[in-house]
Amino acid sequence: MGAVRMRIMSLVIHVCHLNRKFTRLPHLAGSQQNLDLAKQIRDEWMEFGLDSVELVPYDVLLSYPNKTNPNYISIVDHLGTEIFNTSLAEPVPEGYEDVTDIVPPYSAFSAKGQPEDELVYVNYGRTEDFFKLERELGINCSGKIVIARYGKIFRGNKVKNAMLAGAKGIVLFSDPADYCADGVEPYPDGWNLPGGGAQRGNVLNLNGAGDPLTPGYPAKEYTYRSSLEDAVGLPKIPVHPIGYHDAVHLLHKVRMNIHTNNQVTRIYNVIGWIRGAVEPDRYVILGGHRDAWVFGGIDPVSGAAVVHESVRAAGKLMKKGWRPRRTLIFASWDAEEFGLLGSTEWAEDHARVLQERAVAYINADSAIEGMYTLRVDCTPSLHTLVYDITKKVSSPEEGEEGMTLYQSWHKRDNSTERDAPWISKLGSGSDFEAYFIRLGIASGRARYTKNRKTERYSSYPVYHSVYETYEIVERFYDPSFRRLEAVARVRGGLIFSLADSPVLPLDCVEYAMSLTKYANSIYQLALKHPAAMQQHSVSFDSLFFAVENFTVVARDFHQRLDHALAVRMVNDQLMYLERAFTDPLGLPGRPFYRHIIFAPSSHNKYAGESFPGIYDALFDIENAVDWQKAWDEVKRQISIAAFTVNAAAETLKPVVS
Amino acid sequence: MGAVRMRIMSLVIHVCHLNRKFTRLPHLAGSQQNLDLAKQIRDEWMEFGLDSVELVPYDVLLSYPNKTNPNYISIVDHLGTEIFNTSLAEPVPEGYEDVTDIVPPYSAFSAKGQPEDELVYVNYGRTEDFFKLERELGINCSGKIVIARYGKIFRGNKVKNAMLAGAKGIVLFSDPADYCADGVEPYPDGWNLPGGGAQRGNVLNLNGAGDPLTPGYPAKEYTYRSSLEDAVGLPKIPVHPIGYHDAVHLLHKVRMNIHTNNQVTRIYNVIGWIRGAVEPDRYVILGGHRDAWVFGGIDPVSGAAVVHESVRAAGKLMKKGWRPRRTLIFASWDAEEFGLLGSTEWAEDHARVLQERAVAYINADSAIEGMYTLRVDCTPSLHTLVYDITKKVSSPEEGEEGMTLYQSWHKRDNSTERDAPWISKLGSGSDFEAYFIRLGIASGRARYTKNRKTERYSSYPVYHSVYETYEIVERFYDPSFRRLEAVARVRGGLIFSLADSPVLPLDCVEYAMSLTKYANSIYQLALKHPAAMQQHSVSFDSLFFAVENFTVVARDFHQRLDHALAVRMVNDQLMYLERAFTDPLGLPGRPFYRHIIFAPSSHNKYAGESFPGIYDALFDIENAVDWQKAWDEVKRQISIAAFTVNAAAETLKPVVS
Repeated sequence: MGAVRMRIMSLVIHVCHLNRKFTRLPHLAGSQQNLDLAKQIRDEWMEFGLDSVELVPYDVLLSYPNKTNPNYISIVDHLGTEIFNTSLAEPVPEGYEDVTDIVPPYSAFSAKGQPEDELVYVNYGRTEDFFKLERELGINCSGKIVIARYGKIFRGNKVKNAMLAGAKGIVLFSDPADYCADGVEPYPDGWNLPGGGAQRGNVLNLNGAGDPLTPGYPAKEYTYRSSLEDAVGLPKIPVHPIGYHDAVHLLHKVRMNIHTNNQVTRIYNVIGWIRGAVEPDRYVILGGHRDAWVFGGIDPVSGAAVVHESVRAAGKLMKKGWRPRRTLIFASWDAEEFGLLGSTEWAEDHARVLQERAVAYINADSAIEGMYTLRVDCTPSLHTLVYDITKKVSSPEEGEEGMTLYQSWHKRDNSTERDAPWISKLGSGSDFEAYFIRLGIASGRARYTKNRKTERYSSYPVYHSVYETYEIVERFYDPSFRRLEAVARVRGGLIFSLADSPVLPLDCVEYAMSLTKYANSIYQLALKHPAAMQQHSVSFDSLFFAVENFTVVARDFHQRLDHALAVRMVNDQLMYLERAFTDPLGLPGRPFYRHIIFAPSSHNKYAGESFPGIYDALFDIENAVDWQKAWDEVKRQISIAAFTVNAAAETLKPVVS
Repeated sequence: MGAVRMRIMSLVIHVCHLNRKFTRLPHLAGSQQNLDLAKQIRDEWMEFGLDSVELVPYDVLLSYPNKTNPNYISIVDHLGTEIFNTSLAEPVPEGYEDVTDIVPPYSAFSAKGQPEDELVYVNYGRTEDFFKLERELGINCSGKIVIARYGKIFRGNKVKNAMLAGAKGIVLFSDPADYCADGVEPYPDGWNLPGGGAQRGNVLNLNGAGDPLTPGYPAKEYTYRSSLEDAVGLPKIPVHPIGYHDAVHLLHKVRMNIHTNNQVTRIYNVIGWIRGAVEPDRYVILGGHRDAWVFGGIDPVSGAAVVHESVRAAGKLMKKGWRPRRTLIFASWDAEEFGLLGSTEWAEDHARVLQERAVAYINADSAIEGMYTLRVDCTPSLHTLVYDITKKVSSPEEGEEGMTLYQSWHKRDNSTERDAPWISKLGSGSDFEAYFIRLGIASGRARYTKNRKTERYSSYPVYHSVYETYEIVERFYDPSFRRLEAVARVRGGLIFSLADSPVLPLDCVEYAMSLTKYANSIYQLALKHPAAMQQHSVSFDSLFFAVENFTVVARDFHQRLDHALAVRMVNDQLMYLERAFTDPLGLPGRPFYRHIIFAPSSHNKYAGESFPGIYDALFDIENAVDWQKAWDEVKRQISIAAFTVNAAAETLKPVVS
């Protein structure tokens, strides 16, 4: 591990400089600026010393506001006259007054339309919010315009719920309760969202499909494109986001004026390669997106700078004679903000080689979303490596000199289940999705975050607004840039270790422990229906047996690993374990979510659900129309989960029966 | 190749003895006799010297006649009185009079029922036969009982076509035109089908699903089973097979009396292993089925004996100190006759390890179906190896002493496209299906066959009748057993060569040549609609570019192969090439047919179709209801095919960009 530590330390951080350089202009996907940035990154990566760097284009469906016919919401009087209109743009922060091409707040992929009706407030627009309205309050949203506050769940899920409730439009707003931290001033005096700020974002329900017109296949020039009517995940109703200064006015009848256009647009990934010295056909990938809604001070540049810095560090090491054992791939993805499009299209394009050769995917989106401690979401087999690496990185916090990042993190966010820092499941909402959930490649992400127990606001206040600038990071989030440096060292440490360790640093016993936890948890959920469980003879025995089987096999595997002679063979078993949890049939109605242990929640794309097939079968089952059918589906999903866990165990057994 | 030739020659053939031993009793899937045979095979394989042998059970849906309420067809008079009944059984051949448990001719998985109506003769019951009846002759089969003669296509397709036409029952009969060769006597005086004989067989339309109740998952004890209503591929109408002596009577109104029962039944595969010395995690599989409709003299014992003999030969070599470089797996499948169930369930059970580790699958069903020459169906990458091996095997024909099997085969059945023996595409109808079409494992089969240019009868006359005895092989098909020996040496040569060659003997350039041929062929089919092609802007350019791309890459690959140092890496590229042609999304409506280049024909399961997605989109397109939609689907399928060929090419490029 000495060599790895050296490599980690070699990440001499230029993120301050990079952050400033990459955030001067907007870099919206599909724009000339974002293509220029792609070329600049390509050229710099070549200079740093990568073996090869390429621009990889795809032609995907994007969505932009109509430049001559702006989107807004009006209050109309009884004569239909517009007596109040919401802002057409956010007040531009100081120093950026001359910047052109700032896209105004909008909901990408909104339907066009000018619906007019009463507004119904639907809280966060969650499934349970609509249940409450309909079942307890007797409020019918059908044919109405609804207004939901941002937060708690992915905005696409809010829009889907509104459509299911029959709404004919949905307004999204940022409530100060969710986008202002206590005792903090709005930007530029603090890091809270100003009243004129609003959250951009796509409102798709892609379920992992990538480009809406080419599900399952890369959006190349020759690729067949479905019609817009058959496209995946497009909302059928107008959607628009507003800030809280505008939101307070909307208590009457409103009219939405939405003229956003969908159009097929060329996007560009930048892909860089370092050939592995010993196992060139084993790939370790570090990828993060480049496109930003506006300046991208936090999202994504705080992360993209880390990728850039990792490339520079690797290039320096290569000039000293180092070459990784395995191949390293660096990716600057485009159009993440429009539905993870660049990363998903590349995954679709290269699914076959990735399936056979990819060891791990590390994601590098925003490196900072708070000022408290580290946050890691990853596959269970990476837990041990994450702990090991954070023990080799220094705490970036003032007053913690001499403390490791692990110690600092452990102190601030201990797991509820064990004496170790808290690590979460992967959900979705960033570019690891296709790699982990569709292709079954061991994946992880790391960033600096807020205190999840005390800070109640959603993501970070200025998220996806024009106020995500270089200055907000420099003044508030990380003046010394030491937090970004710590995140860079975690991400860099992961890829260097995965690329260089002779035996892959993946831990199957940790996977077994997580499976046990998830099995118990889904069983507890089912136990809320004891009578139905008995009536329909629902048993979780097969799942518990499978998890126990996996646990025994995983322990045996790691014991054999200690004196394995055929390193290539055991490494293949380690690499393919994550793949073994995928099922080509996918989850019900979600063919591109193929991982049977993890999927983005059906009710919130950002959150990860474990045993998602069983979870969804149990969801709201007491209100199912046909109980027999509903409980049969629970049994079917238990059977699939049990089989999948057993099948994964099979891959860890000695290779000959 | 000297060592391989020695290994091939070591196949000292006991097939005569084995054939007699394994055909004394019926071995119907699910019967005690077939379990006893499984145990006997397991014990003998252990004695021969395999490292391990296991019985692997599954609980699958089978179908048997009701023992107390037999199936038959009646002619009824105007009062409904049965004035003629078809036979309840075949006359038992001499020497087998005391055998019990001979299952009478029936159509496995027929629906129960006693429909009564006029008979409509539908020729072979092919798609084109029904088109002709409906479109040219104006004959409506709806609500009628239809009668189709066996032959030309898989019987399940006939039943499906009858259901689509609205028939309420279907009688299948063996016409002498299809089941009697000219100048040949009926058995026992010759090898033609007697008038009292009839063809058993399943009438499912599984499209690769395996057990109808557990599609996609192995039928283990804990596995969730769908209801019979939701089962895959079961016919909804009664079906029954009769011989030609009975068929001549059926010109009037008939009543079908069908009481066949579906029941979940335990079946057993026998799986034997020889651990590879150098690459134990690379698998070469030889598999064939054990279950027979009755005695199985040809189907399957002439093939099962070859598997048994290969195990014996391998065991002998091992006792001399040999061990294959890669792992060899031998399989005796159960319930092939009921829809390839044993082999498909095992493939489902082990999909993950097979996906990562299987090099090739060689099938061993009936080794003889004629007396003329060799017949090989295999993936294009195996062409070269097949030719090489047949050049090392002697011709089994009298008067051809000193001639190789290759020379004899070449002389008798030259390809129309090149100066080499004719090799066909794989269709379906035997146990390679799940391995090749679903999992994308390079596969092949070899058998002795009739003269396909002059002998017009279907399969072989006594196919699936009680007259498939040891004696029919010994007296007529292969009195010296030299033809079986030649087939054994081809099959054995394939697995020994695939298991032992340091560089895998798979030829990507042959694949490229076949792709070119298939692309031209599907293009010619589309060109039958020049006006529509132009109107809908249908272009095959992307497919031709992809095939050209593949061709260039395949040539480059083989050039690099000549001086490859990293054998493991290029072998993985060779092994995974077949996998690269599969798509987890499957073909439209056929999720378990995932190979984009090959699939069983939608109109005849026995036949292989190339570029099946495009083919099916073009089929009968002039009669499509919505032309725009139909031609859009053609374009979509061209796009998928082009992408798949390009993606496969990608896997053969140098592993680092």
